[in-house]
This record gives sequence, C-alpha cells and structure tokens, in this order.
Amino acid sequence: MTSDTALYPTERLSRVAAAVREAGLDVLLLTPGPDLRYVTGYDAKQLERLTCLAVPADRDPFLLVPALELKAAQASPAGALDLEILSWGETAHPFGMITGALGEVRSTALSDRMWALHVLQFADAFPAATQQLASTVLSPLRMRKSPAEVAALLEAGQAIDRVHAMVPDWLRPGLTERQVGARIAEAILAEGHVQVDFVIVGSGPNAASPHHEVSDRVIADGDVVVVDIGGTMPSGYCSDCTRTYAVGHAPDEFIAYYEVLRRAQEAATLSVRPGVTAQSVDRTAREVIADAGYGEWFIHRTGHGIGLESHEDPYIVEGNTIPLAPGMAFSIEPGIYPGPHGARIEDIVVCADPASDGAGCLRMNNGPRELAIV
Amino acid sequence: MTSDTALYPTERLSRVAAAVREAGLDVLLLTPGPDLRYVTGYDAKQLERLTCLAVPADRDPFLLVPALELKAAQASPAGALDLEILSWGETAHPFGMITGALGEVRSTALSDRMWALHVLQFADAFPAATQQLASTVLSPLRMRKSPAEVAALLEAGQAIDRVHAMVPDWLRPGLTERQVGARIAEAILAEGHVQVDFVIVGSGPNAASPHHEVSDRVIADGDVVVVDIGGTMPSGYCSDCTRTYAVGHAPDEFIAYYEVLRRAQEAATLSVRPGVTAQSVDRTAREVIADAGYGEWFIHRTGHGIGLESHEDPYIVEGNTIPLAPGMAFSIEPGIYPGPHGARIEDIVVCADPASDGAGCLRMNNGPRELAIV
Repeated sequence: MTSDTALYPTERLSRVAAAVREAGLDVLLLTPGPDLRYVTGYDAKQLERLTCLAVPADRDPFLLVPALELKAAQASPAGALDLEILSWGETAHPFGMITGALGEVRSTALSDRMWALHVLQFADAFPAATQQLASTVLSPLRMRKSPAEVAALLEAGQAIDRVHAMVPDWLRPGLTERQVGARIAEAILAEGHVQVDFVIVGSGPNAASPHHEVSDRVIADGDVVVVDIGGTMPSGYCSDCTRTYAVGHAPDEFIAYYEVLRRAQEAATLSVRPGVTAQSVDRTAREVIADAGYGEWFIHRTGHGIGLESHEDPYIVEGNTIPLAPGMAFSIEPGIYPGPHGARIEDIVVCADPASDGAGCLRMNNGPRELAIV
Repeated sequence: MTSDTALYPTERLSRVAAAVREAGLDVLLLTPGPDLRYVTGYDAKQLERLTCLAVPADRDPFLLVPALELKAAQASPAGALDLEILSWGETAHPFGMITGALGEVRSTALSDRMWALHVLQFADAFPAATQQLASTVLSPLRMRKSPAEVAALLEAGQAIDRVHAMVPDWLRPGLTERQVGARIAEAILAEGHVQVDFVIVGSGPNAASPHHEVSDRVIADGDVVVVDIGGTMPSGYCSDCTRTYAVGHAPDEFIAYYEVLRRAQEAATLSVRPGVTAQSVDRTAREVIADAGYGEWFIHRTGHGIGLESHEDPYIVEGNTIPLAPGMAFSIEPGIYPGPHGARIEDIVVCADPASDGAGCLRMNNGPRELAIV
C-alpha cells in the first residue's frame, strides 16, 4: 500500500499556498472533504462543527478544529506538516477566530463541497470579500496525479477488477439484482476497499437505465446485465468499473450494438494522449456509435475524472476544451441504451506521456471487454 | 418497518410551501440530502450534476433532475407527489432552466448541506437575490418528529441496542480496537441498518478522547472502553448510542466518576419536558458533574438533535434557548474525561407531552446504564 507521505507529500501545502498567491486570492478556506484531504492528508468528517484549513496568501496557513477533534487532527498526516493546529471549545466562535487571524480579506476560495451552512457563515464573516470555488485553484493541481496517486488508482482498479472477475459466477437466473448487489458490496470490501461507493446491477430493461441501482427484479435467462461498481480504498482513492454481461444467451441485436460499443470504447481509449482535448475523447466515442446508427442511444457524457472523488475534473464531455496532460485520470465509459436492454463498458485510464512509454494512456482496469455470456 | 407514505406524507410538500410563504421567501432550493428527503422522500445521491427541488412562494413546486436520474426520481416517493419532475440532458444548463421557470427572485433559501459548487452557481443565477439557509424554514418542521418518525427512531434505537447487547462478548483482552470495531460494524448492518455512520471504540487512554474512532491499540485487562456507535436505517433515520465498559475490573477512581456520570445523564433525561430550554438540559447534566468536582472534565455539549441526520437541531448546548416541544428528538450524552481514561453515556430521547402519558420524554435506547464490568 502506498504510504501517507508519498500520497500526501508535505511540500504540497506550500505548493497550494503558491497557487493561492498566483491566483491573486487572499485566502483559501477548506472544510472537510477531498480538497482538505488532498492538501493535508487529513481525512476529517464533515460535521456541523467547523473544521477549516485556512491558506492565506500573505501569512502562515493554519488548521482550526473543534477541541474534540484536536487529537485526531494531530494524529493525522496534517500533524506532520509545518502547520499550526488551533482548536475551539464548544461555546466559542470559530468564524470569529478565523477572521481575527486573517486581517483584511477581499477574496476567498471555498472547497467545492463545503456545506451552505458554512458558505453562508463565511459570507457573513467576510462581508466585503468575494467567494469563488477552491477548484479554480486546486483543480489544476488535483487533476495531474503524481506517480503515488497513479499507484493508488491502480491499486483501486486492481481491487475492483478482482470483484468483476467474480461477478459472472453470481449472475444466475433466479437471483434478484439486490441479492447479486449484496454479494458485490461484500466483495468490494473484502478486496480491500474501506467503503462501497455505488453498486449498479441493471438487468433486463433496467440495463437501459444508466443510473439504475438495484431492484428486486429476478434475473432471467437471456437478460443483459450492466454491472457498474466502485469503492474507496484506504488511500482515499476511488475505483469505478463497468462491464455488461449476457446471462445464458445474448439477444442478436445486443450482440450487434455491443460490438459497436466495444469499438467505441477502444477508439476513445486509444485517442487519449497529452494535448488532445477532453471533448475530443467524447467525440471519438460518439462518432463510432453514431456512424453505426446508435447515436441517439448514447445519452450521457463519455467520462469523468476520478481520484479522491468518484467524480471530479476533468469531465470527458462536449464543451470541455481542456487539453489532456500526463497524470490526468478519468473514466472512458460510453453506453448504448436502445431498450429493452442496454450496455456500457467503463475503464479508468491515466493520460501518459507517449514520448516516454509509447502508449497515450495507462489503463487502471484490465478485465476482459469482449462480450461475456455467463 | 414504517411505510414510505407514513414517514414522508404527501401533504408535507404543501406544508413546506406554506412555510416558504410565511417566511416571506421567494423560493426554497433543495439539492440532495436530508432536507430533500424530508420534503419529498427522495433519497437522491449528492452529485456534481444538479438535482434540485424548487418550492417557490407563488407558483407550483418542481423537481429538476439530470436525465440519467429521471427514472430513479419517478420511482422514488417524490413520484407520488403532486410535483412536476423535469429533467436536463448532459449538455443543457440546469441553472438557466430554474431561473427561467421562476421569474423574479429576491430571496432564496438553500439546503444547509448544499455544496458550495451549487451555492455559488445559484448566487450567479440569481444575482439580485439574498441567500439564507433552508433550516430557517425547515428546522421548525424537521425538529418536531411525527409519530411515524418517532417509530422510525425507536426502530433505529432498538437496532443499535441489540448491537450494544453483544459488545460485552467482544471486549476481550488481546483484541485491538479495530478488530472489535469491525465486528460492531458488521453487527450494525446485520441488525438492520443500511449504513454504518460511526464506530468509536476508545480503550484505555483513548477513552479520554471523545471523538477517537478506532486504533490498533490492544485492549487490556483493567481498560475502560467507550463504545459510541450509530448507523442509518432503511427509513433514513439514524441511531446513536454510547455505553462505557470496564474490562476485567474497574479502576476505583473510574467507579467514582462513572456513578456521577450516570446520575448526571439520568437527571438530564428526567429534566426533559415541553417548555424547558435546550440549554437547561445541558445545565442540569453539567451541574451534577460540576457539583461532584468533575466539571472541568465535561468538555463537550450534552447532546444534539437526531433524525434524518446524526446531528441536527436542536443542539443541547449552553446558549440554545429554544424551548423543547413534543416530538423533538436528541441525544443526552454527558461525559467525564479526566484521563488516563474517561466515560460517556448516551441515549436518544424524544420530548413527550407529559399531560398525555406521564413522562417528559420517551427513551429510544433502553440498554442498561449501570457500570458494566465485562
């Protein structure tokens, strides 16, 4: 397993402080969530009591935590940083402590997942300051995964691949989606995740509903089943992988569009390399599917970034003109949902530098993508 | 199990709309989370893609969901409400759809857990409107639990009581906190919860750190162990219960302050009745502990509300002058942490109408509170 200091290097905090200054911001304010974990390694729980990392442009950063959380914060990787950790007692005023420590503030950036509860209290605490999202500063950093982060994503990908390798044995006629889903959830934990993030088992007509989860529908011979599953590893990094299976036998029209889908997913994967835009990867997948006459049934974007969040930048969608760069990690998951069934194939890939190793991307998922009749 | 329509009655939406009008607000905007679930029964996932219930003062409410979530939204209890459900495609502009549907808006209330990602986009979408928290409108409703909600909390309380009944068997010298915690987490699910919210197993010196979770510390004879555990039931309602155990034998000084703690927790519980303030329940517990000379070691508030969230209004803390009313549900969990160990006893109670049944509150947890040497 990748170590804390490799995943959450102590120099990251000063890199973030530099980004705050470059952005012309007065202070970055992060409450618990993936942004705080990225910057400090501290995996704090989101609570009504304020925990907040302040990274000001012109003074030292500090972490303010409720007194009850002080020991946990000190014991976390944040305790090893060059970072003052302050605490507030049950009847103190934490927002006042932050304004008091910062002086005049005209601009703030807030973690994207900060609760409105805290956003509006910061608006009151800094009435003269603008508010913007922390992602404006952090996304460019978070999108480019370090080698340790890529290793963590690969570890996650291998764990979910091991789960998918067992799924064919569980897709038996007579079991419900929910029963299969329960076995998958157990396996996600048994294979090393600390949290199940989602389990989609869409059988028969439910395969045509991309975000269906599980139901009491009984799986039958001849069903197509979309299995889209993921979890979070002890490192904090997420897995996400989809395979589509046919039970007993596959309907002819399914065989036809599954092959189109497989080609689209492969073409999009092969199109990834530095400099190509996110939307062009989406277009590559869409073109293969549209050319085969299934365009109207590909009803979602091609993918999403992944890391400490299941969904993060960059999104692989029309309109996103960001150029891909080495270290960017995202899903490639086209789908075709004509009904009465549907299919999706999803892998996580990391954009590579083809100059160094030949391929434009590294695949974090490597289970078979050929039509599987189970 | 309590049915969806009893827990999430269809008339709640119009009651909320009336509260929006009474508050002089133009629109209430709820993204996925406990507020949305309370109002509609829809247990939606919080995602970067906008899902939002709009409850305007002067027109019909509507629910906007990503096209991918449309089937799930329609299949949820929200589908049975008198509520238009609209969807947006992958490249559409959901905030524009909301502003377009609402006309002039001067004031908005946002769900307390709405992500900054959406709060700031709503600020842009309604540049002339004020933002306030949805709790200003919803808390008075959510705090007063209906009989069906109390039944759901009791079901949760009984489930976690069954887990606590097994804990003494697992607190064996030689096991680590983490090992005991893993068994507890399994039992939380096995006893009917759908999610483990937290597992605190604080042994020896860790018992003196109220929000310690689990560690690799090996439990030893003579240890005091604080076990604070909770989860979420299929109903959406939460459990939360703490018991403190002594392993093998109890240190004398622990026996002394444990008895003080037990009396404080009992006194605070007996003090609950309509009209009494939240802070007075805190003072009752604090007074017993201070009078016995342990005041400096009771370092947190006495309790927090509970329902669709583990922590919600009302908070049982100095400064909260809200008068308790029938249906209010909250924890009573004083603690004493002098080191090298500590103790906490926690039950969930619901404020009752003593005129009808004699007691000022109903206890959702009923496991033994006497000193348990295991």
